[in-house]
Amino acid sequence: MSTTATLTKQFMSSEQLLEHWQGHRNLTRRVIEAFPEKDLFEFSIGGMRPFAKLAAELISIAGPALKGIVNKNMGAYTEDGFNPQTKEDILKKWDEETEVINHYFSQITEERFQETFNLFGQYEFPVYQNILYFVDNEVHHRGQGYTYLRALGIEPPFFWERF
Amino acid sequence: MSTTATLTKQFMSSEQLLEHWQGHRNLTRRVIEAFPEKDLFEFSIGGMRPFAKLAAELISIAGPALKGIVNKNMGAYTEDGFNPQTKEDILKKWDEETEVINHYFSQITEERFQETFNLFGQYEFPVYQNILYFVDNEVHHRGQGYTYLRALGIEPPFFWERF
Repeated sequence: MSTTATLTKQFMSSEQLLEHWQGHRNLTRRVIEAFPEKDLFEFSIGGMRPFAKLAAELISIAGPALKGIVNKNMGAYTEDGFNPQTKEDILKKWDEETEVINHYFSQITEERFQETFNLFGQYEFPVYQNILYFVDNEVHHRGQGYTYLRALGIEPPFFWERF
Repeated sequence: MSTTATLTKQFMSSEQLLEHWQGHRNLTRRVIEAFPEKDLFEFSIGGMRPFAKLAAELISIAGPALKGIVNKNMGAYTEDGFNPQTKEDILKKWDEETEVINHYFSQITEERFQETFNLFGQYEFPVYQNILYFVDNEVHHRGQGYTYLRALGIEPPFFWERF
């Protein structure tokens, strides 16, 4: 049997995507925790950003982006509002954003996931692709964080533990 | 309006997931290409596997796992069948698996994505979660590969280029 539309076969529901993403965020939180305070802000390989900077990027994307999608606000991306000085600053903000993500994500309708939106006035893609990008970008940077931890002689959390 | 089931709001279709995954695979292929031959097989940070080994893992998961899902075969995971000696060996097999993935993925029904399957006789999860794991695992290891490339002084491909 052939299909005439691209949306006839559902891969996953929005609730399943949110649970999947928050599972990843739990793991990323444990990677942040695994860094010694000093190395979190200073350790780097090959000129890349320290993991604190990568975490600040992730924090500056997820909640603000979802809020922008829901409110159809195309304001530019910025990390200016968040300048953490300690690991505790990062973890506290991380947990606050968990609730922001849940709040805004649940307001996105099925139709909206398929609509194009110019995120941050710069990334014009269907909403579902923008959201996949947030998750992928987190997994990507966390993979770099795993490498930093290994280089520091620290065993990272198991990749498959998401609770 | 509240919903009573978890599958009422579609996040994405299976065709969109496949396109997304193959986009990631295009990028991973370019990361493999970016490594000098010797470093692909030998360079490592913190006791981690060289990128050739990580690529061999990715090749040994995707196609074989989808074939197992479609055929309901729970045979164990193995990398024994693939021992590449050159970058060209890896890229050739990578391209062959692109077709294997397309072939088997398209045979998975919407209902099947939600059914639990004991992948490789070891990973008992809903099929959609197993497939997300393949993609995430690739993005994770590729993030490590980016760090290797940076440590080698090589600029990796842009993360957002997937063609």
